[in-house]
Amino acid sequence: MTFYQKLVHHNQKISRLEHLEAICSWDQAAMMPEGGNSARSEALAELAVIKHELSIAPYLGEWFEQAATEELAPDEIINLREMKRSWQQANVVPADLVEKKSLACSRCEHAWRTQRDKNDWQRFCQNLKEVVELTRQEAQIRAEATGLSRYDALLDLYEPGMTTVELDELFSEVKGWLPGLIKQIMERQSQDVIMQPVGPFPVDQQQALSHTLMDRLGFDFNHGRLDKSIHPFCGGVPTDVRITTRYDEADFTSALMGVIHETGHARYEQGLPETWAGQPAGKARSMGIHESQSLFFEMQLSRSELFIDILAPLAADFFHRIDDPALSPENLTLLNTRVKPGLIRVDADEATYPAHVILRYEIERDLVEGKIEVEDIPELWDKKMSEYLGISTRGNFSDGCMQDIHWPIGAFGYFPSYTLGAIYAAQFMAAIKKEMNVDSLIRERNLQPIFNWLDRHVWKRASTVSTDQLLIDATGERLNAQYFKQHLEQRYLK
Amino acid sequence: MTFYQKLVHHNQKISRLEHLEAICSWDQAAMMPEGGNSARSEALAELAVIKHELSIAPYLGEWFEQAATEELAPDEIINLREMKRSWQQANVVPADLVEKKSLACSRCEHAWRTQRDKNDWQRFCQNLKEVVELTRQEAQIRAEATGLSRYDALLDLYEPGMTTVELDELFSEVKGWLPGLIKQIMERQSQDVIMQPVGPFPVDQQQALSHTLMDRLGFDFNHGRLDKSIHPFCGGVPTDVRITTRYDEADFTSALMGVIHETGHARYEQGLPETWAGQPAGKARSMGIHESQSLFFEMQLSRSELFIDILAPLAADFFHRIDDPALSPENLTLLNTRVKPGLIRVDADEATYPAHVILRYEIERDLVEGKIEVEDIPELWDKKMSEYLGISTRGNFSDGCMQDIHWPIGAFGYFPSYTLGAIYAAQFMAAIKKEMNVDSLIRERNLQPIFNWLDRHVWKRASTVSTDQLLIDATGERLNAQYFKQHLEQRYLK
Ligand SMILES: [Zn+2]
Ligand SMILES: [Zn+2]
Repeated sequence: MTFYQKLVHHNQKISRLEHLEAICSWDQAAMMPEGGNSARSEALAELAVIKHELSIAPYLGEWFEQAATEELAPDEIINLREMKRSWQQANVVPADLVEKKSLACSRCEHAWRTQRDKNDWQRFCQNLKEVVELTRQEAQIRAEATGLSRYDALLDLYEPGMTTVELDELFSEVKGWLPGLIKQIMERQSQDVIMQPVGPFPVDQQQALSHTLMDRLGFDFNHGRLDKSIHPFCGGVPTDVRITTRYDEADFTSALMGVIHETGHARYEQGLPETWAGQPAGKARSMGIHESQSLFFEMQLSRSELFIDILAPLAADFFHRIDDPALSPENLTLLNTRVKPGLIRVDADEATYPAHVILRYEIERDLVEGKIEVEDIPELWDKKMSEYLGISTRGNFSDGCMQDIHWPIGAFGYFPSYTLGAIYAAQFMAAIKKEMNVDSLIRERNLQPIFNWLDRHVWKRASTVSTDQLLIDATGERLNAQYFKQHLEQRYLK
Repeated sequence: MTFYQKLVHHNQKISRLEHLEAICSWDQAAMMPEGGNSARSEALAELAVIKHELSIAPYLGEWFEQAATEELAPDEIINLREMKRSWQQANVVPADLVEKKSLACSRCEHAWRTQRDKNDWQRFCQNLKEVVELTRQEAQIRAEATGLSRYDALLDLYEPGMTTVELDELFSEVKGWLPGLIKQIMERQSQDVIMQPVGPFPVDQQQALSHTLMDRLGFDFNHGRLDKSIHPFCGGVPTDVRITTRYDEADFTSALMGVIHETGHARYEQGLPETWAGQPAGKARSMGIHESQSLFFEMQLSRSELFIDILAPLAADFFHRIDDPALSPENLTLLNTRVKPGLIRVDADEATYPAHVILRYEIERDLVEGKIEVEDIPELWDKKMSEYLGISTRGNFSDGCMQDIHWPIGAFGYFPSYTLGAIYAAQFMAAIKKEMNVDSLIRERNLQPIFNWLDRHVWKRASTVSTDQLLIDATGERLNAQYFKQHLEQRYLK
């Protein structure tokens, strides 16, 4: 067996353990009764230890050295590169720092769950400072190993290849036109009369409608399921993708749009190349590309007027409300394209969402680079919220800088993925529209050519190329926020 | 850390991996879409390898030696004994024989699935001979290591402490009275007029009824679930027991009695002592004791006339058939206590079931000991079926010696557990009846004192005592088939 083959086996083994982890985590969220929780958490922690031991096994260094001298096929070289990337990421940070940060994050997250309800910034601040301090140490070590800046070294964990330089440029462009655009949209929408559909919308009917939608969006039920959980997510493994949602009997659109979003994530996973199963080259390219697929399904496709023309009669049918004007295509379109600045990121519409992300990006970038301190966050938050969205959060920490779980768990560098996803998605759609008449396809209920395009240009490429290359091959150019701007203008100002 | 403590940690680790295995296996049977199967099987196989490597880790020999010299508390000595027992069982058979047998069994089982449908004894016989040959080799090695006979060494894997000598005595006693008893019962029942309830009995109503019954039988839904699978089983872990059933809309009693049976298994698991969680001393004592709990719930308790008096109106209520005479207590009692010899073990009633088991025991015992060969099975099968149950299977291999999965998968030594379970269950009930008025308790719908007895005498003892000792402590005497005989006479001939 060559050293490359040894590494393939090694990665396959880790991937199989990730399979068990994914299913047991899904079960914990979707099936497990409360009383099973502590034993489950212990079992999953044990598995994490075994996985970690495998990923830092001492013999790997030599295997990589030897494999580098072997004659490999081009696609094997690609896989080796991805293997090495994740091996280096797992090995560079000393075990004691990993453990210290993990403990600090657990503490911070645990306390945050009650501190947020109490708007207790003072106490939260103390815990977060510890998390930030350890994150800076981690970033420093990663920076030295990669030659990147501290924040870029963290960014690289979620969005390989992305840099602060590129993000600054991209986001400052978006910041240039976004506040004005939001204002214009709000003026335009100020006269709209929207009817709020009145529940109850029974869960089993919502579920049946969700299944039908997923089916139309090509979700493969032979390789996946839809279930319920408190926090919706897309989990499982490519051969068996588990998506979840949460139903609200008073409002069916939130669960429905959530299901469509997760279906986008799911199709990416289901569409990953089987030939690379269990190998780093066969994994999703990045968090941003992953989000681009969910946002493509949710924002580009399903919130379009033409798609809602299909969705609305389906909903009216499943809820036995053929004559309910609140379920008319016109009203559902208004409802699903409403733009309104708010305090909470996860409740934001697609136009105001980037403002939430850019704000967080700017703060976490400067925090990691040591240009600001945790104490500075509330004031900066308030200033940026006022500037970007025209609303203040002064004194309201709960709905301000304490609203997200990302910082308490030490996931600095993650936030940009959300808006990168939205920008990628718009650029993909623009490229598709150059090749086919998307509007006609939606009208004909023939989405297959669109899915085929995504499959060929995104899903099947997995991690065999860089994000840059993927984008250039798929759309003919590098990342370009103009397509996202055009998308918003076309949908909201046409 | 003492060596004993090292062993405790080691067993805890294995137990946590068993947790993940149990949940992923449950998922495979109850939740997973077909297309996820091959990746799941690979992931579970990988986990089995890791578990096996842990269980035969080279350092364990020294740990056990050292632990034996340490000063231990009495309950630690007990746990050490159980640890060592399972360690020895896992280590005594050489890896290449384990692998050879595992391959032969896979082959045999896989082919059996189609051979059974085709009644193809000739081809099945060839595969089974290989399995038997390797099983004999395994038994020989286990026999040398334990000082037991070959068959006893296998029996010890499922029913520690049980021997051929004891089984021969016990089963020859049962054989002495069983055929006559069955005949008497059949004569007695020959005039009964039974109405077969006519479906459909909708699955969701059956499910709701099952949940209610489980609740009355003390199943803890904070530590477990009921779901559907093709082959009903009790899986999961003590903190989260997963039982399954299969619903037939034409016949609700099969699923219902199945659920009650699995609830018995589940309560044993849920009742195991928390203080011993993850340790060998905290596991269920044996397959026979496990089956005694399911049969206690199903046979001793739920098929009793008094319990059916409670169950029948519940069923009539859940199925909205208050006036259906087929759902009257009298008719449901007749239906659920019908005795009729048949070819298939899993369809047998409690009176004829032991005949199926004794027949298999006698054949597999002689097969393992080398007194007969695989070619002799069909004739012996036919002879014993005629002798014990008065029916012939000549030429019908599918419903004869090819009906069970146990031999194809090489599980020789398992069959006796079923009837041991029935005998233990009857003996437990007889002991309980000496302490309390079970009939009154059932009438008062107050089963708690009965469950408390089982909890104290069986569940909480786990594997901290031998089966013999457990039985003596609980019932005041060693295993005694007379209680099972009395139970049958009282129920069927009173
Ligand atoms: Zn998403
Ligand atoms: Zn059973």
